Amino acid sequence: MKRKVGIIGLGYWGQNLLRNFMAATDVIACCDTDPAVLAKLKEKQPYFKLFGDVGEFLKDSKAEAVVIATPPDMHKELALSAIEAGAHVLVEKPLGISVKECDQIIEAAEKNNRIVMVDHTFVYHPAVQLLKDRIKSNEFGDLLYYDSVRVNFGKFQKTNVLWDLAPHDLSILQYFLDNKMPRAVSAVAATHLGVEGLCYITLTYDNGFVAHLHVNWMAPVKVRTIMVGGSKKMALYDDNQPAEKIKIYDKEIKRFEEKSDDVRIRYRVGDMVAPVVPDKEALANVVSEFSNCIENNRQPVSNASFGRNIVRILEAATESVKKQGLPIPLNI
Amino acid sequence: MKRKVGIIGLGYWGQNLLRNFMAATDVIACCDTDPAVLAKLKEKQPYFKLFGDVGEFLKDSKAEAVVIATPPDMHKELALSAIEAGAHVLVEKPLGISVKECDQIIEAAEKNNRIVMVDHTFVYHPAVQLLKDRIKSNEFGDLLYYDSVRVNFGKFQKTNVLWDLAPHDLSILQYFLDNKMPRAVSAVAATHLGVEGLCYITLTYDNGFVAHLHVNWMAPVKVRTIMVGGSKKMALYDDNQPAEKIKIYDKEIKRFEEKSDDVRIRYRVGDMVAPVVPDKEALANVVSEFSNCIENNRQPVSNASFGRNIVRILEAATESVKKQGLPIPLNI
Amino acid sequence: MKRKVGIIGLGYWGQNLLRNFMAATDVIACCDTDPAVLAKLKEKQPYFKLFGDVGEFLKDSKAEAVVIATPPDMHKELALSAIEAGAHVLVEKPLGISVKECDQIIEAAEKNNRIVMVDHTFVYHPAVQLLKDRIKSNEFGDLLYYDSVRVNFGKFQKTNVLWDLAPHDLSILQYFLDNKMPRAVSAVAATHLGVEGLCYITLTYDNGFVAHLHVNWMAPVKVRTIMVGGSKKMALYDDNQPAEKIKIYDKEIKRFEEKSDDVRIRYRVGDMVAPVVPDKEALANVVSEFSNCIENNRQPVSNASFGRNIVRILEAATESVKKQGLPIPLNI
Amino acid sequence: MKRKVGIIGLGYWGQNLLRNFMAATDVIACCDTDPAVLAKLKEKQPYFKLFGDVGEFLKDSKAEAVVIATPPDMHKELALSAIEAGAHVLVEKPLGISVKECDQIIEAAEKNNRIVMVDHTFVYHPAVQLLKDRIKSNEFGDLLYYDSVRVNFGKFQKTNVLWDLAPHDLSILQYFLDNKMPRAVSAVAATHLGVEGLCYITLTYDNGFVAHLHVNWMAPVKVRTIMVGGSKKMALYDDNQPAEKIKIYDKEIKRFEEKSDDVRIRYRVGDMVAPVVPDKEALANVVSEFSNCIENNRQPVSNASFGRNIVRILEAATESVKKQGLPIPLNI
Repeated sequence: MKRKVGIIGLGYWGQNLLRNFMAATDVIACCDTDPAVLAKLKEKQPYFKLFGDVGEFLKDSKAEAVVIATPPDMHKELALSAIEAGAHVLVEKPLGISVKECDQIIEAAEKNNRIVMVDHTFVYHPAVQLLKDRIKSNEFGDLLYYDSVRVNFGKFQKTNVLWDLAPHDLSILQYFLDNKMPRAVSAVAATHLGVEGLCYITLTYDNGFVAHLHVNWMAPVKVRTIMVGGSKKMALYDDNQPAEKIKIYDKEIKRFEEKSDDVRIRYRVGDMVAPVVPDKEALANVVSEFSNCIENNRQPVSNASFGRNIVRILEAATESVKKQGLPIPLNI
Repeated sequence: MKRKVGIIGLGYWGQNLLRNFMAATDVIACCDTDPAVLAKLKEKQPYFKLFGDVGEFLKDSKAEAVVIATPPDMHKELALSAIEAGAHVLVEKPLGISVKECDQIIEAAEKNNRIVMVDHTFVYHPAVQLLKDRIKSNEFGDLLYYDSVRVNFGKFQKTNVLWDLAPHDLSILQYFLDNKMPRAVSAVAATHLGVEGLCYITLTYDNGFVAHLHVNWMAPVKVRTIMVGGSKKMALYDDNQPAEKIKIYDKEIKRFEEKSDDVRIRYRVGDMVAPVVPDKEALANVVSEFSNCIENNRQPVSNASFGRNIVRILEAATESVKKQGLPIPLNI
Repeated sequence: MKRKVGIIGLGYWGQNLLRNFMAATDVIACCDTDPAVLAKLKEKQPYFKLFGDVGEFLKDSKAEAVVIATPPDMHKELALSAIEAGAHVLVEKPLGISVKECDQIIEAAEKNNRIVMVDHTFVYHPAVQLLKDRIKSNEFGDLLYYDSVRVNFGKFQKTNVLWDLAPHDLSILQYFLDNKMPRAVSAVAATHLGVEGLCYITLTYDNGFVAHLHVNWMAPVKVRTIMVGGSKKMALYDDNQPAEKIKIYDKEIKRFEEKSDDVRIRYRVGDMVAPVVPDKEALANVVSEFSNCIENNRQPVSNASFGRNIVRILEAATESVKKQGLPIPLNI
Repeated sequence: MKRKVGIIGLGYWGQNLLRNFMAATDVIACCDTDPAVLAKLKEKQPYFKLFGDVGEFLKDSKAEAVVIATPPDMHKELALSAIEAGAHVLVEKPLGISVKECDQIIEAAEKNNRIVMVDHTFVYHPAVQLLKDRIKSNEFGDLLYYDSVRVNFGKFQKTNVLWDLAPHDLSILQYFLDNKMPRAVSAVAATHLGVEGLCYITLTYDNGFVAHLHVNWMAPVKVRTIMVGGSKKMALYDDNQPAEKIKIYDKEIKRFEEKSDDVRIRYRVGDMVAPVVPDKEALANVVSEFSNCIENNRQPVSNASFGRNIVRILEAATESVKKQGLPIPLNI
């Protein structure tokens, strides 16, 4: 049975969500404060119930599931209202703009027994899922590092580059690490025209694993690469490539005859393989996970607690930026 | 008149130095502790005076200029001896393994009125010099950031990746910034098989400029890219490319109608230009700078003080690694 | 005043045409033989007049301009009917499947004083127009060669790769050369599963200029590169690149002191420039050219005669393939 | 026992040959008409016997094996003289400048029972040998096409681009095809400054296989790619890449339910693999093959007859260029 779904916020990402929810569920209502957006929508989808006011939408739309695709500072209020109106909720990333907000959402969801899922789309990207499977099967051996470069020229948002781009990598990272949190987070930013447009975020872990993110709106070229280094194999995921996005390198660094003080190291180099990545839109997977979780009353991979952890890291990174890169411990 | 030159240490880099000094000066003596190296050299260059012992080399070689291409922990002793023997000295990077060592070398050079130059080869690379010229002429506007990725698979050295690879970028950075030192340095490393094989180094400056280095011996692929972001233009220098190593992007981010609180930003995108880079070996430029400085009794760009600053940053980065990424201030 | 437009054929390309015509003209009617296509269209565009039969469409649609996006073997009949019904016509490439068909269309268009334009989309691509401007201004000097590689894995069509992919390059070529025809055409094909899936086409010209096309559906990777060699400069157009599609190389080969028999040649290498290419969809330019030509009763760049020349070359290439690569003269 | 080897011609390639022969054999004599070359050599290799005259070299050098690295128009005379003087011979490619010359060399070699090998270096390149092994094991299925692009900017030679660059691909092709000759060859060239600087060569075979070479000295960029298409797999060999030179694509085009007239085709896409290519210099393999053939009195892969076939194809291509691309049959 198809779920009755309502969507709040029909900007760029809201339109993508709408398209995917229309393909797999029964979208019945939409809400946006911009009358022009509603008028355009009415022309294309005459049978939708359209609302300019969220209160009325929640009262009258009869949506069992509500999708929230508004600016982040509105997420908490909308999510709480939707949950209290009895709906399951999918919230665009990040879940909220503070850990405190996230905690309120988690509490409401538990109290009302509603599913809250965060649209951390990359977790549902076939390439990320393939890498996750390989990590899980121990193909890479012990993980040594995660290195991401996510840079391009523009577009400056109202928020800064840390809160705009880093959630992507943090969600991939949390997924790869089974939600294990870093011991400490440090971050340094470069500010241009009053906004942090470049940010380096370093995450250190108890076991020596290191993760590093370079997010940048002021780079001359677009780069989207993630390197994952393991003790047995290494992977390079280049999301900019039209094909062969993932390359797995059978390269290993081994200690050799540990008899002396010398660092005697041997390098093993095998074939590189670019595995076939299933050709499915990540957002379609988001929709099916959300529907499936509601149907079976189970928690999605990117549930509210998953989303809260990412906001926790973003908060710590923000504090570190203010303190010129001081590592902020997360163990409290 | 060609200088009489002697070389100590004929490993991989020493051979490169030998080849370039032979092309432009009068190499008269070589010293290496490995008899096999000397035997091979004798076959090719029967007229060289060859020494297995540094003391004898310094006493008998009659070299006016001495090139030191040994492991870094021998630099200080050899440099001091050579200076005291009356020779001008070119030392492979880094100048020493501590600021204290560097200070001793500087003091000896001043006392004996000898030239000490550090072979920070990249400072003399035509591509780096082209970028320096453009920065100097203010073509890029205010500098916002320097981002370097210098990663590959192998070769683990006796030292760690920080002291092996970072001196390249630190020398380029100091050259670009006219020796201006950062306010603080932080660094985080990942250790594999007992050696730091990956290191992220972040340098912050009083004026908001940020520099960041990613050096890595455990990456599946070789990357050698430097991005320089300015308020008017940006550059990408990819040393891995066989041609068009430097690309200059006429891209600018501007504030637009600053009337309200809104971040209203406009993007200007012009042509990309890959300027012709003169086809000259950097090491040949090193040799001619060294000869020229001796001839004219002037300081080289990468003089002992320049080399000391880089060791100062490496020391601070080493301390930061030990303190899990704590920013170490340099203003003392 | 917006033109009243009708579209025949709503497959993959027909949908693209529909979208662009809707943005700039008044689409009033569509025709497709597939009831499922019409049903889907009715849902989205309830105000369109929809037809399953071309005769009724031409009789009742009242379209002043008709767009034909059917398989090529239907173009001639449909174009003639539309012209006789008084409409201006835009035909998807190629204009027809023989020169004879093209001549009939040209004759009908002249007799009825109607505009016939062929949708050779690449002629209206901003990157191609930029190159055309540079060629026209003699920036490249004398043209020496045109080399295109247009290869990928799949999709086999009912026609062969020659008639499917080569029209793109032939249209660019004819545009660059101001419709100058080659002296002779030769072509060799490789057949797999009963269809020509790879074809090399060589075009020779009176003045020594050579053009060469490699079209291939059986290549492991997608390549879309065009090299244009001139006596003063050279260009590389890589349509696969997300940015910097065109690179202009200031490279020149010059004869040097022609005193002896020796081929003494000097190479001049200047900067490479990737000029900004206006970001406009080629198909939007097709629509505006078509509208403009109707408005002002002038001939489009890719008029029927332009389209006929391309079919002439395709016919000759087909003959050459049958004769194992025999050059087929075109001067008759 | 190491062979006593003499080398005639010490230009760019001769120096490479010298270096590799010195590493594996006993080079005893060299011959070059340029006194400056000999003087430089004397300095480095004081124990070599040096000759400015070929006659004296052949009479007095006592070389058992002679390497000929002169311009091609001298190959025949030198090879014949060396054979008659009792030496085995390695000739730089091409073997001669006409089939007639090649036949004379073959005849002399047979009469005197001497080994004649042509230095078609690519046949001994580890990447080419890897591909040959895969082809032999039928991993690619039936071969459909061979496509090579070997283009760059400069260097014009005294000969034309056809005779300079095409021998590389022709040797790879003959190696892959077990010396099977094409049915016909056609070629078209573009001439600049009086020399053919670009040439397209098409080779057709009885079984429908097609080979195509694009060689060009007037291209703005350097490209070195070979695509091999098979019915089961495809390979891309990019010699410009520093790593992963060979990529093998598990891609197959299959006919699907052959019930109707329709071309119903299905595409199978599996993983891409970049196999490890042994890191050995091709020229070292050339030297060991030559030595080994002399030792065991067996024919090298690139023997005189192999070299003659390549000259046969070059002759036919030359004739085709003169006849504006007319296919020249080779079955006579």
